[in-house]
This record gives sequence, structure tokens and C-alpha cells, in this order.
Amino acid sequence: MGKNIFFERKGPFLLNDLFINLKLKKKIKIFDIRNLESATKDDLTFLDSIDYINFAKTTRAKYCLTTIKLKDYLPKNCEAVLVQNVLFDLCKVTRKFYPNADIDTPDISLKNPKKASYPNVKFGNNVLVGKNCKIGSNTIIGSNTIIEHNVSIGDDCTIGSQAVIRNTLIGNNVFIQDGCKIGLKGFGFIPLKGKNLRFPHIGKVIIKNNVEIGANCTIDRGSINNTVIGENTFLDNQVHVAHNIKIGSDCMIAGQVGFAGSSIIGDSVSIGGQAGVSGHLKIGNNVKIGGGSGVVKDVKDGTAVMGYPAVSLKNFIKNSKK
Amino acid sequence: MGKNIFFERKGPFLLNDLFINLKLKKKIKIFDIRNLESATKDDLTFLDSIDYINFAKTTRAKYCLTTIKLKDYLPKNCEAVLVQNVLFDLCKVTRKFYPNADIDTPDISLKNPKKASYPNVKFGNNVLVGKNCKIGSNTIIGSNTIIEHNVSIGDDCTIGSQAVIRNTLIGNNVFIQDGCKIGLKGFGFIPLKGKNLRFPHIGKVIIKNNVEIGANCTIDRGSINNTVIGENTFLDNQVHVAHNIKIGSDCMIAGQVGFAGSSIIGDSVSIGGQAGVSGHLKIGNNVKIGGGSGVVKDVKDGTAVMGYPAVSLKNFIKNSKK
Amino acid sequence: MGKNIFFERKGPFLLNDLFINLKLKKKIKIFDIRNLESATKDDLTFLDSIDYINFAKTTRAKYCLTTIKLKDYLPKNCEAVLVQNVLFDLCKVTRKFYPNADIDTPDISLKNPKKASYPNVKFGNNVLVGKNCKIGSNTIIGSNTIIEHNVSIGDDCTIGSQAVIRNTLIGNNVFIQDGCKIGLKGFGFIPLKGKNLRFPHIGKVIIKNNVEIGANCTIDRGSINNTVIGENTFLDNQVHVAHNIKIGSDCMIAGQVGFAGSSIIGDSVSIGGQAGVSGHLKIGNNVKIGGGSGVVKDVKDGTAVMGYPAVSLKNFIKNSKK
Repeated sequence: MGKNIFFERKGPFLLNDLFINLKLKKKIKIFDIRNLESATKDDLTFLDSIDYINFAKTTRAKYCLTTIKLKDYLPKNCEAVLVQNVLFDLCKVTRKFYPNADIDTPDISLKNPKKASYPNVKFGNNVLVGKNCKIGSNTIIGSNTIIEHNVSIGDDCTIGSQAVIRNTLIGNNVFIQDGCKIGLKGFGFIPLKGKNLRFPHIGKVIIKNNVEIGANCTIDRGSINNTVIGENTFLDNQVHVAHNIKIGSDCMIAGQVGFAGSSIIGDSVSIGGQAGVSGHLKIGNNVKIGGGSGVVKDVKDGTAVMGYPAVSLKNFIKNSKK
Repeated sequence: MGKNIFFERKGPFLLNDLFINLKLKKKIKIFDIRNLESATKDDLTFLDSIDYINFAKTTRAKYCLTTIKLKDYLPKNCEAVLVQNVLFDLCKVTRKFYPNADIDTPDISLKNPKKASYPNVKFGNNVLVGKNCKIGSNTIIGSNTIIEHNVSIGDDCTIGSQAVIRNTLIGNNVFIQDGCKIGLKGFGFIPLKGKNLRFPHIGKVIIKNNVEIGANCTIDRGSINNTVIGENTFLDNQVHVAHNIKIGSDCMIAGQVGFAGSSIIGDSVSIGGQAGVSGHLKIGNNVKIGGGSGVVKDVKDGTAVMGYPAVSLKNFIKNSKK
Repeated sequence: MGKNIFFERKGPFLLNDLFINLKLKKKIKIFDIRNLESATKDDLTFLDSIDYINFAKTTRAKYCLTTIKLKDYLPKNCEAVLVQNVLFDLCKVTRKFYPNADIDTPDISLKNPKKASYPNVKFGNNVLVGKNCKIGSNTIIGSNTIIEHNVSIGDDCTIGSQAVIRNTLIGNNVFIQDGCKIGLKGFGFIPLKGKNLRFPHIGKVIIKNNVEIGANCTIDRGSINNTVIGENTFLDNQVHVAHNIKIGSDCMIAGQVGFAGSSIIGDSVSIGGQAGVSGHLKIGNNVKIGGGSGVVKDVKDGTAVMGYPAVSLKNFIKNSKK
């Protein structure tokens, strides 16, 4: 039942009230919605794909939204709450717990920071800072940048101008260039004719030490999970990192690369300009992805891939000579 | 002779004065430049491609800029004004009617909005609003955002921070994320060595109800026509929509997708990340375009395409296995 | 020993102190780090690739960082300073001369410009201008835009809103749209586990007369050289131009195109949307690059190429029909 520092959580709710059609016998209080790894016994979790059955085995949750096909992967301590479409019901339930996480309402409590509150921070002109922000020593924030409530920025950071940062925790010695938009809601919704149902984004962005992020990048926060940029990873300009992406440490991501949601990128991965990585993939450590590639499958440790769809570098060169 | 609310129109001009080399006999007053569909009998229209001959049949215009090859597609009520290069002459003439639409001069009459003028609107800090803007009830505008003169925004909208919106009409319940630049001049000009001749952009952007637009997107206004984003269509981050694009309703456009000018996208179309759609295409309803694709031909209703150049999904998978 | 107007240079340093392991006999004063073409006899230059041996032949530098493999390409007047990894040692030495060019510290001396200082310039609201900027007659700067110290902007320019411009010299009649970030540090560093070593970027961006740059573009300044956009070249929205790129005159660069570092693009080149150009290439004059292409090799004058990897247009069409 850890606190979500960025989004107000309602509840607890009775499981019976959340799923009135299920006609559950017991009166069960649910305190939060969490993924399989982080759920406690008081949370509702979810299993929507066979990709996550390893996490299911060890979940501490007592109740799990899932389908009839997947329910047998749950451990004994975890009871299935059966639905037709896990993401649809997950969306509806999460909206009850977090009614304000589906749209990024701009923080209108922003103020020009007082020097007394941030004695060792340098601010450009017109910087706007929300409530309860932490900004470390020797950090400098460029003009017109907006740091929304509860954001935390470490020591020795340089944040450029015209940036917007919300729902984000930033380590030390991080350099973020001008115009970045970090911690915004991702592109997640249930398509419904006339009016889509937005998925609440209750996760955050975590940017570790020594990271560099180029100009005009966009890094969306996680939906249920977090989006993470690992230590000493450098992103060039105009990179798009979708919700729930986890990038390891010591990676080099060149300009205009795009990541679709929920992929996991290993350590020491280098990605050439304009490459794209599809959603829900696992890219190993020490992988090299050539510029312009479109990666649509998992990539094993130490592999070099290129092309659209990306294949091993050898095959790409062979095919190019045909 | 409807008014152009964003650009001051000069004239009327005599057709004889606009085309002195043509040596027209009659003294004809021309009041505006319009496309074939919307021209009235007092306007000059244009036909520059065989793609638009269906619109030519029913035009109400009495005069049409066109070439000797295309003139026979005009109806009896419409007389051809023959030129070598329709777009070049159209550009020159449009510049006479609209001398201020070829460059986006920043609106320097912007002011911080007074609460009394917008009683039911919430504004962040340093919001700048031009003259004659309309902003609906329960709409919220994020800090540092610029809304230029005559822009109209509906009820229940959320506009992020650091955005610029000009020459745009926005419906209700629209959500625009931080850093978007909407309603700017498109990439249209006559290439001339040393100094290109810019095409005036006298159209606008129309964003319908329930639309979502991700962070750092750019949506250019139309040149003669409008750029339109249909109802309940969602765009992810860093999407580029060029001038005159019309996107239907209920579409899903993933991150970093780009549209070249003047294409028409149907309803319920989904487009994967980083895909590109060439100019002057017609993409049908219920089309699915895979991520990273480059679409260079029309796509029929209900088709799934992928690849560069995009082919049917079946053929793409077959080719990938070679 | 020309002055670098944007970055403070330390020194001179003794060559012996810069490379203590080399055990040089003479005491040589080095005043600056320059490329082969622009180095004077008082500067240290570098030769890291066989691509640049033509420049080596005529360099005026007396000392050149290079490898044992390349040293014989140096002229008699120029002595080799032998190292294992030219770029690594160049990076370390350049950091000594220019200790403040590896991170873009936001200019915190910005002020709202006084009308008296810029009598013939129109400013929007909240424009911020650094020290020693030059802004020409009849130029207009949009709201919230930041012009950092020593930037020079010519006459009759239109600079949009929400832009950031640093380390840049801009000619006359230039039009830059909203949200551009120009003159920032490029994506150059020596990868080191845990903490990369950033390459100082001591070059600038030079934008010549009559250039147009679309919204939300990013143009990085040069590392040792400059980044140059030639006369009457037009860039569409969301284009990324990396460090040291030189684009000729009269080019048309469509939306979302990306250039990796140090390539040289000729005159009258047209590049379709979303195309990418790899680093260190030479693209000739009058080249046409199709939309979505990935150019990985030099392209000769007058050639049309397309595809990924880009091949001649003929071959692309042939391959597409297979």
C-alpha cells in the first residue's frame, strides 16, 4: 500500500463493487492496482498475456484480473477474477482508483521559485515550479521551464529551457536539453467509437544518474509500471520513449529513435538514428541496432541487427546485395 | 464570399489585371481564390491535376486556372484561364489577395487573459491570448502556452503547456499535450534559385470533438483548403501533419508518424509508429498501416498494409521470409 | 588565433603538458584546437580518418594528433603527435582549452530586451535576450523565445515563438518557425562505462540568407567545425540536423528528415519526408533522395536515390516489383 506521490488514490473499494457481475461471495477490500511483481496481498493485479506468466508465479496478490485461458498460470494464493478483456476491465477499475490520471491537467499551482526555498539552485527567467518539488545542489534550470508538483531532481543537474517535467524522479548529474516533455500521459486507451476510454497513467518516469536527454525528446510516464532510463544512458534529439519502456545503463540512442510501449532494453545497447522498436519486446545487453531499423522481435544479448524488419547484420548486408 | 477569419483578404481584383498577358476581353471582378468545391461564381478556382476532375464537374466558379491539357474537364459554366504552371500562377495570384499569409508573423498583440473575459476558463502562468479568441467553459490552458488571434477552443478542453496554436478551430473535449505547434504555415513554395516563392497558406486547422494530440506534434494549416483532424481521433507524440491533410474520425496515429501534404485518411484508420504517408493519397476506412511503413499509393477500405513501400500485410510477411 | 565568440578559450598550453606521456623534446605553445583546413601554425589539429587526407596535405598546423597508420599523410611542415585513439585524445585536449563547451549551461543572464537597444526590432511577450546579441532591422521575434548571448540575427528575419537559439549566426530574411532549438550541443561523446566523456562542442551554427526552418526542428552546433545551412534552403517541421552537417543552397528538406553528424550535402538537393542520411557522407549537387530512404553511402551529383539502404531510383523501383 505504498503511496503514489503523483496521483491521488481513491478507495479502498470492495471487489464486489468493482465487478458487480461476478457475484463474488466474499467481501474483499482492494487498496490499489499493481502489476504482478509489485502487488501486495491487498492489491488487485492483472495477467493479460502469456509473456508475463513468470511474474504470475511469484505474485503476492490475492486477486488477479485475467481470462479463462490464463487463469491456470496463477499460483494457489491468487484467485482469478475472470473477464473477457483484461485491459478493458483493468482500465475501468484503475479509473475508479485514480480518477485524475487519464488526462494531464496542467499544474496551475506553479510559481516562480523563491531563492530561499532552493538556496543552491540556479534558475533562469520565468521558471515555474510546482508544490513539493525537490531540486538538488548545483542544479541549474533554464528559462521558461516548468517543473510540476512533486518532481524530484538530483544534484549537479542541468535542465534546459522550454522543458516540461512532471511525474518524474531524476537522479544526479543528469543533463536534459531544451524543449523536452517528460512524464506525460502515454498513448494508451481502449478504442471506442465516438469517445475512446483513456487508460489512467499512474506510473512515473525514473531517470537515473548521469543520463543525457537531447532536445525536444518526449518520454511518457508508465501506465501501471514506470518508464525508466538507466544510468549513463544518452539520448539524442527528438527521441520518443513511450510508456513503460525500460532502458538499461550505458546505452546510446541516436536522434529520432522511437520506442513503442512496454519494451525492455538491456545495458550497453546502441541504436542508430530513426530506428524504431516495437512494443512489448526484450532487447538484450550489448545489442547494436542499425539506424533506420524497425525491430519487431526480441533481440538476444550481443547481437547486431539492422533492417526493416530488423534481421542480423549479416543477413541485412547479404539481402542488400541481392 | 465568406470571410476568412484568420487572414485579411485584399481585392476584389480584375481578372484582366491579375493575368495581363492573357488579354481577356471582359472586365471580371474576382473576389477570392477557392478550391473547386468551395468556389462561388465570384471566385477564381484552379485545376492542376487529373486527380481533381470530379470536383471540376460541379464547380460553381466561373473562372478556373488550368492547363490546355486539363481545360476540357471544366463544365460549361466555367471558363479556363490557361497557364503553363497552375501552381506557380496560383501562388502569385493568391499572394495578391492574401499578402500576409506566406510567413507566420508572430502575433505581437498577445496579452495575459483577463479572468473577466474568460470567466469559466482556467489559465496557467504566462498564458498569452490574442484578440477575438473564443475559449469554452471548463477549458484549461497550461503555462506559457500561446493562443493567437481568432483561435476558437470549445468546452471541456485541456491544452498543455508550451504550446502554440494559431489559425485553428478546436471542438469540445479536445486534449492537446505540451509543446504542440498547431496552425502554422505548411511547407509549400515554388522553388526559385536564390529565393523561393512561398505559397500563401490561407486555410486553417480544424480539430473536431474528443480529439487527443500528443506532445510536440506539428499540425500545419491548409494552403487553400483546411487541415482537418476528425472526431475522436488520437495522435501520439511527435506526429507531423502537413498542410491540407484530412484525417477521419476514430483513428489511432502512433508516435512519430508523418503525413506529407493533401492526403485524405478515412475513418477508423490505425497507423503504427514512424510510418509515413506520401502526399495526395487516399487512404480508405478501417485501414491498418504497420509501424515504420512508407505508404506511397492509395489504400482501399479495410486493407492492412506494411513495408516500405507499403504492400499488403500478406505480401510483406511473405517477402520478409525470403 | 581568431576568437571563438561563443566559448571562452583557456591556454595557451604547452604541447608537452597536454601529452605528458609523449615525452616531446621541444617546448611548444599551442593556442587552439582546429580542424585541418582552418588550423594556423599555432594550433593543434587532428587527422582521424583517411577521408580527410586531402585536407591534411595543405594544413598549416605544425602539430597534428593522429595514428601511426595515418601519419605519413601529413605534409613536411606538420609533425605527428601519435596516439592510439585520435578522438579520445582530441576530446581530452579540447576539454582543457574549452572547459565549458561540453554541457549547454542555460544562459542565466537573459533579459527582456529594451526597445532602445533594438530600435527596429519587434518583440513578442517575454522574449529573453542574452548579452551582446545583434538583431537586424525589421526583424520580429515571437513570444517566449530565447536568444542566448552573442547570437547574431540579420535583417528582415522572422523568428517564431517558443524557440531557443544559441551559438548561432543568422543571415538576412531568415524565417524560423515556432519551437526550434538551434545551436545546442551535439550527440558526441566517448562512451565510458558509468560516465561518458562528453566531447566539447566549440563550433557554431551558421544559417545563411533566405533560409526557412520549420517548427520543432533541432539543429546542433558543430563540435570542432560548424554546422551550416546554405542560402535559400528550406527545412520542413521536425527535421533533425546533427553536429557539423553542411547543407548547400537551394535545398528542400521535408518533414522529419534526420541527418547524422558531419555529412556534407550539396546544392539544390531535395530530400523527402522521414529520410535519413548517415554520418560522414558526401551528397552531391542536384541529388534527389526519396521519402523514407536511408542513405548510407555517398551519392553523386544529379542522382536520384531511394530505399533503405538507398539505391538508385531505377533499382529501387525494380526491386519493389519483385
